[in-house]
Amino acid sequence: MTKPIIALYRNLKTEHVNKIREIASDYLVKTQDELSERDFEAIEIILGWNYAWQEEEIAKMHALKWIQNDTAGMDSLPEVLRHSQTIKLSNMSGIHADSIAQSVFAFLLSYYRGFFQALMDQFKANWNKTYVDNVLQTNDKVILLFGTGALSCRIAELAQQFGMVVYGINTDGRSVEHFDKTFKTEDWLEVIGEVDVVINTMPLTDQTRDFFNTKLFEAMSSDALFINVGRGESVVEEDLIRALDNKTIAGAYLDVARVEPLPADNPLWQTDNLVITPHISGIVEHFRDAVFNVFTENLQQYLADGTLAKNQFNRTKNY
Amino acid sequence: MTKPIIALYRNLKTEHVNKIREIASDYLVKTQDELSERDFEAIEIILGWNYAWQEEEIAKMHALKWIQNDTAGMDSLPEVLRHSQTIKLSNMSGIHADSIAQSVFAFLLSYYRGFFQALMDQFKANWNKTYVDNVLQTNDKVILLFGTGALSCRIAELAQQFGMVVYGINTDGRSVEHFDKTFKTEDWLEVIGEVDVVINTMPLTDQTRDFFNTKLFEAMSSDALFINVGRGESVVEEDLIRALDNKTIAGAYLDVARVEPLPADNPLWQTDNLVITPHISGIVEHFRDAVFNVFTENLQQYLADGTLAKNQFNRTKNY
Repeated sequence: MTKPIIALYRNLKTEHVNKIREIASDYLVKTQDELSERDFEAIEIILGWNYAWQEEEIAKMHALKWIQNDTAGMDSLPEVLRHSQTIKLSNMSGIHADSIAQSVFAFLLSYYRGFFQALMDQFKANWNKTYVDNVLQTNDKVILLFGTGALSCRIAELAQQFGMVVYGINTDGRSVEHFDKTFKTEDWLEVIGEVDVVINTMPLTDQTRDFFNTKLFEAMSSDALFINVGRGESVVEEDLIRALDNKTIAGAYLDVARVEPLPADNPLWQTDNLVITPHISGIVEHFRDAVFNVFTENLQQYLADGTLAKNQFNRTKNY
Repeated sequence: MTKPIIALYRNLKTEHVNKIREIASDYLVKTQDELSERDFEAIEIILGWNYAWQEEEIAKMHALKWIQNDTAGMDSLPEVLRHSQTIKLSNMSGIHADSIAQSVFAFLLSYYRGFFQALMDQFKANWNKTYVDNVLQTNDKVILLFGTGALSCRIAELAQQFGMVVYGINTDGRSVEHFDKTFKTEDWLEVIGEVDVVINTMPLTDQTRDFFNTKLFEAMSSDALFINVGRGESVVEEDLIRALDNKTIAGAYLDVARVEPLPADNPLWQTDNLVITPHISGIVEHFRDAVFNVFTENLQQYLADGTLAKNQFNRTKNY
């Protein structure tokens, strides 16, 4: 009888692949180069995913019990798997938290400390100090995070270090560490006018699609900033452009867009007071180490009792 | 007999001026608009300084006992005052610490998270992801701070929050909170090759003038960054330009220059991998509140027992 297979659809360091073989000695551990279609019916566990696989490949995976995805979101996984009642799904939520939080503060600190103006002046060899009254600090600024998961918690923790007041929004308004106050999603309109920074970290669901639109931007303070490090489809981009053009809000930072790569003729590129990075905020410098750590923690528990230690996908909440 | 005078050579909020009058009821408290040359001989305390004053004005200030300067450094105060044995001097060291630390992290996070490249690409409407392998994180990077005063301590505290390892250099190598290791000034060459970021926060003295030169840059790692938020004269700018041109070091951030404003024809403007801000890192958003707080704390102790509570200038160390 053939051994069940662990398929590694994510490049790992050789030492890590060897370590996985050691932990899972009753399994055949195959890297993506070693796998053939004949192996599909013996695959029990997959690390990562191959987006080339269609329904016919998936249909062959009779033995599949667990997919450990290598991204924070699960929305790009085929629906048949997302809705399966028998296959466990887990994500890499959390491993990107620190890197995304660092990108958020790269933007916030650059904005407050006058770097965007200084960089423009540097091109012109202009020692310009006319804007010093607009050189600000994070201290006592109020930040409102939509979503209170691992990413938001890390942003909140750093925000408190920088003297900010941290509000959070989640489904039931439950309190969360590092947040000074939390609110229910439906109550967002009551608080959004008081805050200096609004950040979207929410996954893409039917509830979050198009959530950030003219109604929301118009409720914000004209000094406030908007940041999207969640999903592009949560923002109505024409509404954001209008809000920036009309100075309804003061500035924005997008790491994600509805269409990626963002086409050269998209008007976002020409919008003032907007910073765009090409979906890089989640890049983890030592990514393979982080993926290995989450996977092996889950694998060890799976082998012991069939459950996962962390990051299990919640089918009801859809994240 | 005329009352002794407290001269306020720094704009304060009216409510703060009134508060000072209340605290120092035995004094005449005069703002710079209210002062005339006839008042000079009655001035006992000065908050701030008027850089237009020459020796002849200073010679009239027979009653002068204390100058509370409104900057962190004292090097721009006339030498006759810096060396006086009878006049107490105090500075605003510490009130700029948090704002400078925020500028330092604006640079570091922008550099590590790919913002400088992304901003260039944004001008060209180019969703460029070719540099993702160079998107890094602060985590486990080693930062070496020259100086372990209030400013360095705040940078060190934030650096630890960002997962960095923090080394410090001071005269005797004494240990300081938030530093993982400290070294004596004379031992800098032993450690500088191991670090990812070198930051100057030292005041300008005979010992620190021209300290950052070719010898030092050549001892640094080619991946390392140099930051000057101390004084311009501590850096030999031609040596820094050569180090950046030759890729001896990877990048630099200068908030200060030897000649300010930096002339348009200075070659620093055209140097790659260098970010220049026009001596704005120390700008405190609520500066007048901070100045008032330091001054009144010192004033209350001065009125009680003739000594200062904090920030007294050390004539031996010259800072």
